[in-house]
Parts: sequence; structure tokens; C-alpha cells
Amino acid sequence: METNLGMREGGKTIHALVTPSLLLDRARLERNILRLAEHSRKLGVVLRPHMKTAKCIDVARQVFPSGPGPITVSTIAEAEYFAGHGFRDMTYAVGLSPASATRAMELCRRTGIDLKLLLDTVGQADSLDNVRTYTGVTPSVFIELDCDDHRGGLKPDDPKLVEVADRVVAAGAKVAGVLAHAGESYCLNTPDALVKAAENERLATVRAAEILRAHGHACPIVSLGSTPTALFAENLEGVTEVRAGVYMFFDLVQHGVGVCAIDDIAISVLATVIGAKPEKGWVLVDAGWMAVSRDRGTANQRLDQGYGVVCDETGRIFEDVIVCQASQEHGILAIRSGSGKSMPELPVGTRIRILPNHACAMAAQHDFYSVVNGESPEIEARWERIRGW
Amino acid sequence: METNLGMREGGKTIHALVTPSLLLDRARLERNILRLAEHSRKLGVVLRPHMKTAKCIDVARQVFPSGPGPITVSTIAEAEYFAGHGFRDMTYAVGLSPASATRAMELCRRTGIDLKLLLDTVGQADSLDNVRTYTGVTPSVFIELDCDDHRGGLKPDDPKLVEVADRVVAAGAKVAGVLAHAGESYCLNTPDALVKAAENERLATVRAAEILRAHGHACPIVSLGSTPTALFAENLEGVTEVRAGVYMFFDLVQHGVGVCAIDDIAISVLATVIGAKPEKGWVLVDAGWMAVSRDRGTANQRLDQGYGVVCDETGRIFEDVIVCQASQEHGILAIRSGSGKSMPELPVGTRIRILPNHACAMAAQHDFYSVVNGESPEIEARWERIRGW
Repeated sequence: METNLGMREGGKTIHALVTPSLLLDRARLERNILRLAEHSRKLGVVLRPHMKTAKCIDVARQVFPSGPGPITVSTIAEAEYFAGHGFRDMTYAVGLSPASATRAMELCRRTGIDLKLLLDTVGQADSLDNVRTYTGVTPSVFIELDCDDHRGGLKPDDPKLVEVADRVVAAGAKVAGVLAHAGESYCLNTPDALVKAAENERLATVRAAEILRAHGHACPIVSLGSTPTALFAENLEGVTEVRAGVYMFFDLVQHGVGVCAIDDIAISVLATVIGAKPEKGWVLVDAGWMAVSRDRGTANQRLDQGYGVVCDETGRIFEDVIVCQASQEHGILAIRSGSGKSMPELPVGTRIRILPNHACAMAAQHDFYSVVNGESPEIEARWERIRGW
Repeated sequence: METNLGMREGGKTIHALVTPSLLLDRARLERNILRLAEHSRKLGVVLRPHMKTAKCIDVARQVFPSGPGPITVSTIAEAEYFAGHGFRDMTYAVGLSPASATRAMELCRRTGIDLKLLLDTVGQADSLDNVRTYTGVTPSVFIELDCDDHRGGLKPDDPKLVEVADRVVAAGAKVAGVLAHAGESYCLNTPDALVKAAENERLATVRAAEILRAHGHACPIVSLGSTPTALFAENLEGVTEVRAGVYMFFDLVQHGVGVCAIDDIAISVLATVIGAKPEKGWVLVDAGWMAVSRDRGTANQRLDQGYGVVCDETGRIFEDVIVCQASQEHGILAIRSGSGKSMPELPVGTRIRILPNHACAMAAQHDFYSVVNGESPEIEARWERIRGW
């Protein structure tokens, strides 16, 4: 077993990979990273990429070629991992529990990193007093905002916003700022709607910051983001930073939202044909939900992509061929219903690639990326992922 | 990090676990294992449990307390792992490609195990000649049957059945027998329908074996199984072995099919409350699809269980509370729509358990089981899982 991070796979090609295997296209990754980096720079905000999609130091190094920058994490295990690789400035963007806050502050004490937390209730604020006393570290926290009824967070005009901030200070902790996530933007599908969602996210976040400042809280960081709104924001006045994760890889859901071209999707699962049912128009492959995930994120979009879009071994799409069903280790390929196309010839042993509905979910099913470049079969590197909590 | 297999967690309780964490109830596991073992014994067939659900040597040891027995695996990585723990008689129940057949036979050569393969086409049969020559091992293969239009396999009356068997022999390989999987039984929901599906699976499998025998193939193994049909079969005359996997843990899909009680479900994810939206009746927990999987297998059943049924920390169900939405690291708990119940009080920091829609998919999101027993918080052991291909 090769386990070195970022090692070169001297001369190895994808033909030698055991299937199913996760591929990552370096050129697409670089292009996607550059796109949001340039957009953020143009809008004058810091980009704090979310590492929950990639979970990989080698991908993080592509994002920050000149050394560790600010990142967002979805688990404390990610924070520990990236701290071990020199990252110092992180936001743990999941609401805190007393146990997770304590664990996070112990990590700060041990490593000297700045790991900011997230909360939206008075109870969580009050609990910071104990966390501070127990760990000897002063927590720095974001107040979570709700800009689109997506999940948690406070509305900017909720009187609790100021109350929570006051209680954070009373608990001896610091208010780092406010943080919103326009998660409902994943349900949109026109540029106009995305621009509006981005502006709505900005207005809510800036308004909350203004209210807090009017009540004596400096609120230095004004943070927002989702991949669609980050890329479609036209003006981020009053905002200091943007967060996004899936933009590095993109996927069919983001394509359905209208945020990327299919050709921008940087990851895929390499699979092998293991059978067929010609009378049903089925071809069976050795990639089931264990390899592509159970995510059906395109099911409610205008174009349902099943469990993923099918390409040949070099990444060229077979038009209208999708994974129509998936069991644990079997995928069934078929022509999209209503299409006039017919199935390509795919004898047993043929290799194909499957593009993800949801990059975060597909990547999470794998322990490493085999890094490729365009249609070349050469594997440039093997990049390990982390998992767990 | 504790990494020893089956180690004792001296005095540790679930209160000390980082959440989300996968729990496995030993008493329920033992009861479920015993149920199918006794049923198989009564019906006079060998039980060849499928290790794709548990993927864990410690669970396998519960199934085979007196030493390794026959097992089914879904990946060659599982075969390698169980071979390393002394298992010798395995069936790789996924259709072969030339590459996987070669890898499997190399494993046999290296370890001396008997790893039987699966195929259903003449092309696969022909390719065995090369595999045999290249590896020096004679492949032993099952011919896959299709008893219910579920996935791959040949209908018993398909003339290709005999042709494929003949070509297996011509390629210098052995016909181990026939193998069916009544995968469509997961869509049923009455005892009568399950009994009929089991009998249908038996008839198809026995008929195929008879046809092969009439053509000079001994067909020593007649193998069938899915958890529902294995448990509901009333007569397995002519069948030599039964395969099933999810029966060890059970899940909400199996409960919906009518195969188990909710109280039989042996795994759950322990999670912590991290927020609430009282105006929406929502409680947020730190277990999203990364912890419970994206599986929505109950969505098409009579009772949609969302992303899982919610219990208190000891495993007692909160009636009509389900995980209604899941993002990567967030689950949203709510009362099932149409219920007259109201949400229990679940302040931030409260711990709950979530029962799986699909045990195979939930367990696959985790690296280990914390083994518990009933309502006791004590962790008896930590059992590692394997993953990958």
C-alpha cells in the first residue's frame, strides 16, 4: 500500500488502478481554484475556502501555493489535520456543543492555532465561560445568521442577535463576527436568481454586523458564502470574507444550478464494466453507491442525472448515458429516459468514468485521489484524504 | 488514537465519545445472528453470511464463534482482509472483470484460500483461460441467475446458461454452482409476498441447477439469498446455501419490508444537539449525511423515515421524531409531518441516537463501532471496520 502524501506514482497509469477509484483532474482543479480566487480578489474580500469537500492537504496546497491561508473546516478532525500541516487560521463552521467547544479550545492550546467557533443561542454563549476556564483559552466565536431559512442561525433583526453577542462577551469570550451561508442557493437555476441570492446574503450579513456595531461590538469579520453565491456575487461591500468548498471540484448539482460547465467537474470515479442486460439496455459496472455515494442531488433539478453522468475512460461524455440505479457495489448504466440515443458498445472489462452528483459525497467514499491531467492516462500523484470526526 | 481490534475500552462510556459516533448493540447483534442461524439450520442449508454490511472481523467472530466459516464478500479488499484473519471459503458476489478475476486468483495463490467468482456471460467465461494461465490457479465460478429482474444474471431457461457453463469448463475453470439474489424483495411489505419471493428465488435457482446437471455440470452449490427471502423462506429443498448480510444489524428499510422490529436494529449514530429553530419545530444535531449516509431507502415505503428515526441517548425512541433533512455535518430533527406529537425538549448538548435507513450505508460512513449493550452507557469494545477496494 502506498501511503505517502503527494507521492509521485512513477509511470503508473489509470489502467493499472483497481476499480472503483477516485480520479482528480489537476487542470480543472487549478482552473476552478483560480476562478473563485480571482473573483474574490476583484470584489476585495478574503477567500476562506471550505476544506470539507477536498479534506486533503495537497488540494489545500493548490489553493495556497505560497503557504497556509485562512480556511473553513466542517469537523474538528479536519482542524487537527490542517493544524498539523501548518494552517493557523480556521473557522469551524458547525454550531458548537459544550464538548466540541472544549475539544476545539484544547486544540488551540496545544497547537497555538486560532480556531473560531460558531453559535446562535444564549445557552451556547453562556457555556463559553466554562470552556474558557477549563481550557485556559479565550474562545473567539461567530454568530450564525439565517439569511434564507436554510438551516440554523438568527435573522439579523432578531433581538437575540445582540443578546447572544452580549452574552459571549459576558462569558469572557470574543465576538469574531457574523457568518451566513446561503444554502438555499443550491435550489436555484438562473443567473438572475443567483445574483439576487448573493445580494440577499450580503444584505443580511452586513445588516447584522451594523446592528452589532451599533451595540458596541466591533464585529471585525463579516463572512458569507456558498459556492453559487460566492461565484455570482457582483458586489460584496461591507463583507470581509467569502467561504466556499465545492467550487474546487464542482459537480452535476452545481452544473444544474448553473454555476459551472460539466467540463469543469474535476473529480470522477473510474469503474469497470462487469456485465450487461441488452434486453433492458443496461450495462453493469463495479461502481455502486459505495463508490459514487447515495447522493441524488439532481433528482429535483430540471435534468435528473441519476447517480451520475457516464464518460469514457478518458473523460469524454457519452451523451445521455447515466447511472440509473446503484446498489452497494453495482451501478447500472442506461440511456436517460426520453433520449433518442442508444447505448454505446461497452463490453465487459471496458473502463468508464462517472461524474458526481455531489462532489463532497462522492469524494467522502474514498481514501485518496489519483491525480490525472486531461485525457492522459498518467497518474501524476496520489493524494490522501482524511475522514472521521 | 486507539486502533487495536476488539480492544476493551476500560471503563469508557458513550458520554466520552466524540460525536457523531457509530454504536453497535451487542445483544441485538447476537439475537439477529442467532435468528438466521437457527432458521438456516432448520431449513437444512449452509449459511454463508455476507460481510459487506459489517466489514469487521469482530462481527464475523460473533457469527462464527467456533472458527471461520463460509462467507460472502463484496470487494476483493474484504477477501484480502478476511483471508488475513483465517477465513478460507469465500464467494466474491460481484460479476468479474478480467482484472478483478486475476487479482482474486492471485490472492488465492498467495494465501491458499478458495475465493469463488461470479459471471453470467460467455465473454467472462472465455477470459478465465487467461486468468488460469497467468495466475496458475483454477478459477471456480458461480453462474449468476436473475430470478426477479433486479440486476444482472441469466434466467434459468436462457439457453446461455448451459453455454456459459460449457465455456467455463472449456476455459479450464470449474462451475461451482448457481447463485441468485432476490434483490426485489426489498420492495415488498407483506409476509405473504416475502414467502412467495423466497419460493420464487428457490424455484429459479433449483431449476437452473437441474438444467445444468442435465447437461453434465455437477453444480454442487445452489446458492440464494437476500435478508428478506432468507428469513421468510419456508422450504429450501434443492438449495445448499443461503446468503444475507444486513440481517446482522437490520435497519428501517428492513423494518418497512416487515422483516424485523425497530427494536431489532443493532446500529445507530450517537449525535449531539447543536441548535434549534423553535419556530419551525427544528432541532439541529451534529450528524449529517456524512454520519448517517445519503440513503433514503424508506422514501418509497409506506412510512418515510427521513434520514432516520431519533432515540434518546439510551436508545429509547422519541415517537414520530425523525431526521427530516441532512447536510454534510448537520441533521435537522423534526416531528414527522401529520403527527399530533410535539418535539421533546432537546437543549444544546443533549445526546441522541439515530437509527439507520440502511445499515450498510450508515456503517460505511464510519471507521469503527463502539460496542454497547442495551441502555448501559458502558462501551464494551471498539471494533474496527475496513473500507476501500
